[in-house]
Amino acid sequence: MPKVLITTVPFGDKDRLPLDLLENARIDYLINPFNKKISEDQLAEIIIDFDAIIAGTEPITEKVLERANNLKLISRVGIGLDSVDLLAARKRGIKVSYTPDAPSLAVAELTLGLMLTLLRAVHISNSQMHKGKWHRFYGKRLQKVTIGIIGVGRIGTGVLKRLKGFGPSKILVNDIKPNHELDKENKLEWSSKEQIFKEADIISLHIPLTHLTKNMIRKKQLFSMKRDANIINTSRGGIINEQDLYEVMNAGHLSGAAIDVFEKEPYDGPLNNIERCLLTAHMGSMSVDCRTRMEIESTEEAIRFLTGKDLESEVSQEEYDVQGYNL
Amino acid sequence: MPKVLITTVPFGDKDRLPLDLLENARIDYLINPFNKKISEDQLAEIIIDFDAIIAGTEPITEKVLERANNLKLISRVGIGLDSVDLLAARKRGIKVSYTPDAPSLAVAELTLGLMLTLLRAVHISNSQMHKGKWHRFYGKRLQKVTIGIIGVGRIGTGVLKRLKGFGPSKILVNDIKPNHELDKENKLEWSSKEQIFKEADIISLHIPLTHLTKNMIRKKQLFSMKRDANIINTSRGGIINEQDLYEVMNAGHLSGAAIDVFEKEPYDGPLNNIERCLLTAHMGSMSVDCRTRMEIESTEEAIRFLTGKDLESEVSQEEYDVQGYNL
Repeated sequence: MPKVLITTVPFGDKDRLPLDLLENARIDYLINPFNKKISEDQLAEIIIDFDAIIAGTEPITEKVLERANNLKLISRVGIGLDSVDLLAARKRGIKVSYTPDAPSLAVAELTLGLMLTLLRAVHISNSQMHKGKWHRFYGKRLQKVTIGIIGVGRIGTGVLKRLKGFGPSKILVNDIKPNHELDKENKLEWSSKEQIFKEADIISLHIPLTHLTKNMIRKKQLFSMKRDANIINTSRGGIINEQDLYEVMNAGHLSGAAIDVFEKEPYDGPLNNIERCLLTAHMGSMSVDCRTRMEIESTEEAIRFLTGKDLESEVSQEEYDVQGYNL
Repeated sequence: MPKVLITTVPFGDKDRLPLDLLENARIDYLINPFNKKISEDQLAEIIIDFDAIIAGTEPITEKVLERANNLKLISRVGIGLDSVDLLAARKRGIKVSYTPDAPSLAVAELTLGLMLTLLRAVHISNSQMHKGKWHRFYGKRLQKVTIGIIGVGRIGTGVLKRLKGFGPSKILVNDIKPNHELDKENKLEWSSKEQIFKEADIISLHIPLTHLTKNMIRKKQLFSMKRDANIINTSRGGIINEQDLYEVMNAGHLSGAAIDVFEKEPYDGPLNNIERCLLTAHMGSMSVDCRTRMEIESTEEAIRFLTGKDLESEVSQEEYDVQGYNL
């Protein structure tokens, strides 16, 4: 009987379907016994005889894979692959699948909510009101600010789509290569990252964590932003250097930041002390519908594989190439 | 030299233009010396020799007007008229103007932000994270919930317009009389308030405070809502009974509420103790552009009046009729 390790939590919580699918396929499974993000060492310890892993964002490294004697498939619940050493997996003949489309709607919606919250200082007012302090903050409207979107793939495009209902804003966009198809729907200005840092009132990141984007935003970039600008990261921790963000905000620079992803999760660090830094617990994909879709798709992929069928959502060669630059 | 009392604060803060306009017109002015919402007694004390008032939401009652020997114009910064005794003003020949269009864009944007925040528990996660607690909340997407809009005038319509970018949701709407013009733009279900309370996952109020809407939402209505529903009030305090809302939420009913307006402002009451109640300090209209427009329009109206020109934004007979029901 094949054995699957499910590392991401919560799992099967709002909808039991993925667990039912495994049971109906007579596949044994174990859900993350630590009930929080597993460390590399913990994973290396428990991975030994599993055939497949339905994976969260825990590190699936060379060290882990060395001990994974039976592992033949990594099925990622989500889109990011920064946690998986793709080349080490390929070397061992381990396949990797993911669910790149499922989370995008939830992340795009959350991003709009964070934009509106930051621009109106809702999080600061809420925190003050709960302490009995009344201050009417001035804010800005989306239509009146310059918006910077770094990364216009599935999620960035979803953000642009939702911005349209708010009327025409000045939107600066950046990606590895411009996708001028998008210009038909929104009035976009394709810009350098430097220009976005300098000119945008609110910046949102929708890019993967790779060796090219790690620490992409440090003090230099943050200080090149306007003093009253805002930044949002719902993509991956580590793209904005957390310590630098703390120091820059602590020095009074930036109106606000919304950080949903962290270098080390669960996060408990100095950004907790910055009231105008809006913090959420990696909740970008956590809408019931998207999360369920991610869990079902990754489970179905594992079942297909373990019952001898073809994979349908294998990671593309491009993702291996990006990691290949590390070699 | 005519004298204007400006009661709303802040005023002329982000843009001095309204103050410049008054000075250029050689009109004397005094800005609220208390720097917070003025009480009825305070206003009665200082109103005596002013010719016009550029008014916030402080009570302009019979008692105040009795002492306002020179008053000839009340120029409201904003749309709500619940604070002004219109009939008592008319009896004394005092004109009343307002700026009904200026705040609507800012309120509509804030409402969308509050919807997205409540549906994803962003405010709760932020509050917990700042205390070092990591919990990944499940949320819902706008597209997957039933939205209830009570009041589809200027602001409610603005909310509907912005919802469109989020894809088709099930939207229940209620107003004194249905406006089927709106059906061309959104797929709407005109519904009774009772049906909205019962079926909606998130309800937003965009109605004036009148004797018809005061305490419109009490325990009975709140308990008729789904246990995991959300409610937003950016219109006026008192439409939802605050004590009832506190008791209902304290009993574990409702997923969340976002309350921007209160029976008594500044607010400092028991809702402060409900973490899932998102509180803001009457900031609906507080975007720099809308607030500036409100201040300029109400100031221009006062200047027109005091320099013998026609008023352009006098309150309609309909508003007097609504208050007339009180007689």
